[in-house]
Amino acid sequence: MNIISLTTDFGVADWFVGTMKGVILRIASRATIVDISHGIASGDIRAGAFALAAAYRYFPRNTIHVAVVDPGVGSGRPAIAVKTADYFFVGPDNGILSLALSREKIKTIRHLENDSFFNRPLSHTFHGRDIFAPVAAHLSRGVSIQKLGPRVNEYVRLNWPVPKRGPGKITGEIIYIDHFGNAITNIDGQSLVTESRTVWDVLTRRKCFGTLQNHYEAVPLHSPAAVVGSTGLLEIAANGGSAAALFGLKIGDSVTVRVRDGAKL
Amino acid sequence: MNIISLTTDFGVADWFVGTMKGVILRIASRATIVDISHGIASGDIRAGAFALAAAYRYFPRNTIHVAVVDPGVGSGRPAIAVKTADYFFVGPDNGILSLALSREKIKTIRHLENDSFFNRPLSHTFHGRDIFAPVAAHLSRGVSIQKLGPRVNEYVRLNWPVPKRGPGKITGEIIYIDHFGNAITNIDGQSLVTESRTVWDVLTRRKCFGTLQNHYEAVPLHSPAAVVGSTGLLEIAANGGSAAALFGLKIGDSVTVRVRDGAKL
Amino acid sequence: MNIISLTTDFGVADWFVGTMKGVILRIASRATIVDISHGIASGDIRAGAFALAAAYRYFPRNTIHVAVVDPGVGSGRPAIAVKTADYFFVGPDNGILSLALSREKIKTIRHLENDSFFNRPLSHTFHGRDIFAPVAAHLSRGVSIQKLGPRVNEYVRLNWPVPKRGPGKITGEIIYIDHFGNAITNIDGQSLVTESRTVWDVLTRRKCFGTLQNHYEAVPLHSPAAVVGSTGLLEIAANGGSAAALFGLKIGDSVTVRVRDGAKL
Repeated sequence: MNIISLTTDFGVADWFVGTMKGVILRIASRATIVDISHGIASGDIRAGAFALAAAYRYFPRNTIHVAVVDPGVGSGRPAIAVKTADYFFVGPDNGILSLALSREKIKTIRHLENDSFFNRPLSHTFHGRDIFAPVAAHLSRGVSIQKLGPRVNEYVRLNWPVPKRGPGKITGEIIYIDHFGNAITNIDGQSLVTESRTVWDVLTRRKCFGTLQNHYEAVPLHSPAAVVGSTGLLEIAANGGSAAALFGLKIGDSVTVRVRDGAKL
Repeated sequence: MNIISLTTDFGVADWFVGTMKGVILRIASRATIVDISHGIASGDIRAGAFALAAAYRYFPRNTIHVAVVDPGVGSGRPAIAVKTADYFFVGPDNGILSLALSREKIKTIRHLENDSFFNRPLSHTFHGRDIFAPVAAHLSRGVSIQKLGPRVNEYVRLNWPVPKRGPGKITGEIIYIDHFGNAITNIDGQSLVTESRTVWDVLTRRKCFGTLQNHYEAVPLHSPAAVVGSTGLLEIAANGGSAAALFGLKIGDSVTVRVRDGAKL
Repeated sequence: MNIISLTTDFGVADWFVGTMKGVILRIASRATIVDISHGIASGDIRAGAFALAAAYRYFPRNTIHVAVVDPGVGSGRPAIAVKTADYFFVGPDNGILSLALSREKIKTIRHLENDSFFNRPLSHTFHGRDIFAPVAAHLSRGVSIQKLGPRVNEYVRLNWPVPKRGPGKITGEIIYIDHFGNAITNIDGQSLVTESRTVWDVLTRRKCFGTLQNHYEAVPLHSPAAVVGSTGLLEIAANGGSAAALFGLKIGDSVTVRVRDGAKL
């Protein structure tokens, strides 16, 4: 019996997530269901894709990852299940799965068309309950992915911004702001650490946020701390506060990392 | 070992829900506990009743549904457990269970008076922890509902507004607004779809919201889409936004559905 | 297989809590994981300590309580695991565990230094994922606490304000405000009830909030009700509303309980 993870924009105020769990347990009474997040902003496919990509690899092999941020529900956009070397992924084919999938070795992609694995009657507006939850439950019971529908070769990929490297500098952008107000960029922090003889200054909107730190409390209270976050990406944080609120940072803001003039350690 | 579902207004900021789960697991260590919602507005018995009614039937048979929105806790209002043909329900007898119960075949209703199934000392303000959680845990272990207290014949029912049908029109009202800002009415959407040769216009506060759609993206961005929601009821949604925020919709607002003049498909 | 409880300030919008659960299940696939709260205010160690202390004793014996409110993550502050007569506790040694520990019989305290029980690579900013979750999972599988690191004799204790008793009065303060807006004080409510022949008036900022009530609905709508809350402490609540909002109550506000003049029942 495998684990089923859930990532949605359904919130926790209503009955939506609980209902999906009821549906899963009717089919797979011993399933272990784990919430990754239900707090993705409504319809924000990119944020959902980012959260799933940040979390999925910490789960046991064969976990079935269900992700539903689905503004096009009912419109005819395809639904897919994907088997990779280590995991299963289930969701609408709108990009929500794509960031995680781009890091995995894909075995097969299936369109979810076999409605004998759906809840009936099928609603037009809640495929989380009527398609994705029951399909994941059946997969967790060992139903072969081949039975879910026809094989397809491609899935919808989101366009993710790629940082630009120039001589002595890298320019990227803020792609996610977390609950603490930490602003996560698309700049690989690990590469900055590896080049550790270099002092990197971190700038956004022409303001210099100082150099790379090891942890939040390395700077004075409410000062900015650029750190390599737990996703491996460069983050702008604030000691004891929200960097987003204190410094007015927003998703899409440009962030530049550059070698400090004449500064070799 | 059965499943126990929880629906409360306790929120997730404090330790209330976790404490109920601890109490359940002390009695029934292998219970599966599922949150339906803990985000019911404080003291909003109607919203809690609606959420429970929308979700409970998606759970496996014999699930024990615990619902606690309980502004009268400690005041002497009775607490009940109800066995129906398919489920158990546990909560204060203040109407929170009534919408679900009205759809079920009731086998027995018991007042919770046998304090040997309670947590002691019994607090005056947290019966979720001290009465409802332990009673549900004992039921999940197979304790007979008859042991919980004396049989009663009635339970408190909420007054739910009933839509009015006139010639060529139905007038109801908004009864719930969900996390997405979708405004759920008390008008049975299925009956509108069945009468499918008719074009129904949906109006609220004299503004016409257009006709019934199949899904959210059938209308332009930020436009209203009247759809049959996943509960089977007519909903007013907005493509890519919150209908409640965009159109100023509130619980209690009147909604009229009427046949478009001369419009037979 | 024991239960693992989680208390953090990670919120539920991001993937942090789900990732911790994935890490636990990779090590202990049959662990039962229970959320106490993830809504502790960011970095509020006192609130986290209070929530943990209010909840932990309702869990089964041998539950492993993980608490992570950790503004100093990565700075070199020690991490600890503690075995008491009835439970395990795991978290940063910054006071978060201290209120619960002060009520328990401590068997051993260990610094978490054996990195063979950590996730690798170890991040600087997410020890919940990389240290506390895997250590708790290993404990739940029966790994001896002695293997986790060297024994220490002390843990960091928070300074909790202690109420002052004068003739016929007790002065304390508000230490926590819950989701309902109830203001929880540090005054032992049980002792007031025991001295039950006395009429106690409850005052804050010179305003008298009336006498001790048994439950919220004992006073008119939106009036203050001083009650003994479910933690055993005196609380100022409001019937049908938020006491904090209605009466402008804040953490740190002084609260006095005094015998009403000439009032012996």
